[in-house]
Amino acid sequence: MPDLYAQYVEKLQRVADLRYSAAVLQWDQETYMPPKGEGARARQLATLSELAHERFTGEEMGALLRSLGGANGLNPCEARNVALSLEDYTREQKLPSDFVRTLSAATSAAFQAWIASREANDFSVFAPHLDKLVTLKRQEADLKGYEGHPYNALLNDYEKGATVAWLDGLFGALTAPLKALLDEIGRAPQVDSRALHGHFPKAQQWSWGLDLLHRMGLDKTAFRQDLSEHPFTTNFASTDVRVTTRISETDFTSMTWSCIHEGGHALYEQGLPAEEYGLPLGEPCSLSIHESQSRLWENNLGRSLAFWEGLWPVLTSYFPGTFGSAETFYKGINRVEPSLIRTEADELTYHFHILIRYELEKALIGGTLSVRDIPEYWAASYHKYLGLKVPDDRRGCLQDVHWSHGSFGYFPTYTLGSLYAAQLFKACVRETPGLDAGIRAGDYSLLLKWLREKIHRHGRFFLSNDLCKEATGEGLDAEVFLAYARDKYRDIYGHA
Amino acid sequence: MPDLYAQYVEKLQRVADLRYSAAVLQWDQETYMPPKGEGARARQLATLSELAHERFTGEEMGALLRSLGGANGLNPCEARNVALSLEDYTREQKLPSDFVRTLSAATSAAFQAWIASREANDFSVFAPHLDKLVTLKRQEADLKGYEGHPYNALLNDYEKGATVAWLDGLFGALTAPLKALLDEIGRAPQVDSRALHGHFPKAQQWSWGLDLLHRMGLDKTAFRQDLSEHPFTTNFASTDVRVTTRISETDFTSMTWSCIHEGGHALYEQGLPAEEYGLPLGEPCSLSIHESQSRLWENNLGRSLAFWEGLWPVLTSYFPGTFGSAETFYKGINRVEPSLIRTEADELTYHFHILIRYELEKALIGGTLSVRDIPEYWAASYHKYLGLKVPDDRRGCLQDVHWSHGSFGYFPTYTLGSLYAAQLFKACVRETPGLDAGIRAGDYSLLLKWLREKIHRHGRFFLSNDLCKEATGEGLDAEVFLAYARDKYRDIYGHA
Repeated sequence: MPDLYAQYVEKLQRVADLRYSAAVLQWDQETYMPPKGEGARARQLATLSELAHERFTGEEMGALLRSLGGANGLNPCEARNVALSLEDYTREQKLPSDFVRTLSAATSAAFQAWIASREANDFSVFAPHLDKLVTLKRQEADLKGYEGHPYNALLNDYEKGATVAWLDGLFGALTAPLKALLDEIGRAPQVDSRALHGHFPKAQQWSWGLDLLHRMGLDKTAFRQDLSEHPFTTNFASTDVRVTTRISETDFTSMTWSCIHEGGHALYEQGLPAEEYGLPLGEPCSLSIHESQSRLWENNLGRSLAFWEGLWPVLTSYFPGTFGSAETFYKGINRVEPSLIRTEADELTYHFHILIRYELEKALIGGTLSVRDIPEYWAASYHKYLGLKVPDDRRGCLQDVHWSHGSFGYFPTYTLGSLYAAQLFKACVRETPGLDAGIRAGDYSLLLKWLREKIHRHGRFFLSNDLCKEATGEGLDAEVFLAYARDKYRDIYGHA
Repeated sequence: MPDLYAQYVEKLQRVADLRYSAAVLQWDQETYMPPKGEGARARQLATLSELAHERFTGEEMGALLRSLGGANGLNPCEARNVALSLEDYTREQKLPSDFVRTLSAATSAAFQAWIASREANDFSVFAPHLDKLVTLKRQEADLKGYEGHPYNALLNDYEKGATVAWLDGLFGALTAPLKALLDEIGRAPQVDSRALHGHFPKAQQWSWGLDLLHRMGLDKTAFRQDLSEHPFTTNFASTDVRVTTRISETDFTSMTWSCIHEGGHALYEQGLPAEEYGLPLGEPCSLSIHESQSRLWENNLGRSLAFWEGLWPVLTSYFPGTFGSAETFYKGINRVEPSLIRTEADELTYHFHILIRYELEKALIGGTLSVRDIPEYWAASYHKYLGLKVPDDRRGCLQDVHWSHGSFGYFPTYTLGSLYAAQLFKACVRETPGLDAGIRAGDYSLLLKWLREKIHRHGRFFLSNDLCKEATGEGLDAEVFLAYARDKYRDIYGHA
């Protein structure tokens, strides 16, 4: 048995080598690649994807996994690795290699078209590429098979077991109370956030952002930060994690919370067990849990008063005389107001941005919305849910990179992540004496220790909901987030 | 036949995708990768190398190449591609896949050890890695087979047909007259190069270096420059070329001529036929011809008076009041003086640096020198050929990255490149009316056009010597370089 398991590890790690290599090429594509590199890069990525797919879904791997799956003598972690790999294998081998290659090439081309489309502020540049991707993703759903809605097949890639029926219920349960809270806030006097808009020089923000990442506890020798069009985190091993950010010189919030957000993702990646490189237990649990990490740092910690009281001397040393008091700063960064850009939304209206994308994708994959009608649909949705007029495509349906990556079904994990984040942070506070005092002193080591122990080290061992139960005693429960939101925002808007 | 050829193109381009992917990972490793990324990176590179090797040397590829090799109906370019691929195949399939993997992993580890060794200024950190690489390279020579000296098998990888016997003769014919010229120069008063040593701020040098690269004619949308420990040029397609440089704030020559040198390489890469991506005709002719391009730009053009007269307004706008007159600057940058660092050597003593490395590698691969004795051997050689005392390993045997890349047999191509450069530049001057006037006006387009036509567009169609004949009417002839050197330096040192 040990021999067979060692063979499995060896084979799977080589597949991981190919996938991580592709991740390096993608990272370069989004950070440094000169524009004319795109054609060759697309085919290089397609070859790597195809090869990784071929190697993973080959008959030899299937036979090995089946032998190991029925075997005794594996320890629980080994058995879990094998079971998860068999699951992955079963799903992936439904896709023919040439489909994987085609999808990869279409994705690379779509990403470049998205960049150009944003520059031109014109959806029609991106539309034919998106149309092709939607067709391919619908094919993918058919190949993978699904019950109910074809979107379920895609959702399942990002959050195992998620379905349209379940998400419809969840969004209903979340957005109705959220809407009531927003109405309450709307009747209170607006908080002042003028200090967050001014002139914040690039170089200063860059140093400040890196400083934040280091203070959060990232291992400096195992990550780096670069600039990109759309901030993201990727990794090529838990010992080589890359985050990116973007800088607006007029909006202080843009880079700062993107750093904290991506830093949360990066801490998760660094906390995955390095010795499980390339194996399921070396991978993140799910996208929703991944997002719970970024949003916990970004919001539950990173938009709290304690956090900014602790960081106040640091912040004011980078930007002296800019922000008034910690108290007004805290209120300003939590200003609730419907807005056009998801990544810059407050943590309440945020979920309406997600709802809009979720409903749009569902219609797109379900075939009831065509790509050319997206801008109109987008405008109608933003008007319906947030009362806003969408002025152009860049501030509308071109704002997110996800579709250009071929990611459909990804957005709902952002809302799931926020819900998990609220539950995890609450449990950590409850279980960790000294946490608040540490945070007020700019020390997040107790939080990180708790997350390492409860979340990071487990890799994919548990499903999202089970991991939440293990960590907090309860499964997913939107009410925890809603209670957190009511407490926090009634306090800020002074009408508890 | 067209079908078979199309299959060959498809297969070869996928191998190229893997090799270029590895090049992206290597580029990242030398520019941006955080230190802890090294372990995973080593195995990712090993997997890519092994896969590329397996795909290229598989029986299917062999059969395809043999069918095409004996076939009619191919045009001369197609036939040449196939013939070169068959040659490559025959050589590479002598290496087992696990050997390729082992060598790749050992190389990655050696590169990191070289960095650490340089930091510690202690050869003993690098020595065990180098020892392993030497053992592997001797195995490689045995696997590939050779006549005469085992070093011949390795030389052949970088310069087809080069042998120890041939190079011994060539170095003899070159270095004796060079020594005589150096003695002559030694008796003349030394030129003044003090203006080249001072304080040159990093940011200013960076902009100046990029400006130089753009003026040389590099397509801005198809390359970029970054910093690395040791400057290099690499490419992931002729449409995505990367150069690196390093900056010394006290030595003006270090970055400037590294930019021009790497820029020469990069122009060659950009000039290779993009439509031959992944095929031999899309690859450079040889390392000696590659080096002829970098050294032509660096020395024949880049250390000429006309070049600096043309650039004088630009140079003095970046560094006002720093360099006196173009004439004294020209003399200063051509100061001849034995020195410890190869990449900063003048163009005459340079060849003794190469001779030393050539003789050392020959002894190492021949088994008459052991790795632990390298520092002592290095000191003795620098004393013998250049009359210098080597103060430490960093300025001695740790200065070059090449061995840590597993490159043995590479150095001689630098001298060959200088000889070809002199011949090519002479022919270009002879055939190109208006060249000198253009250069004096800061316009190098006629030179680039000539090189594109005579060298770049041919890819690997001709062997080095034949390409030189096609371009200049003569094969390799050290006397052209020697005549150029005598004319130039007797003029500078004023004792013609």
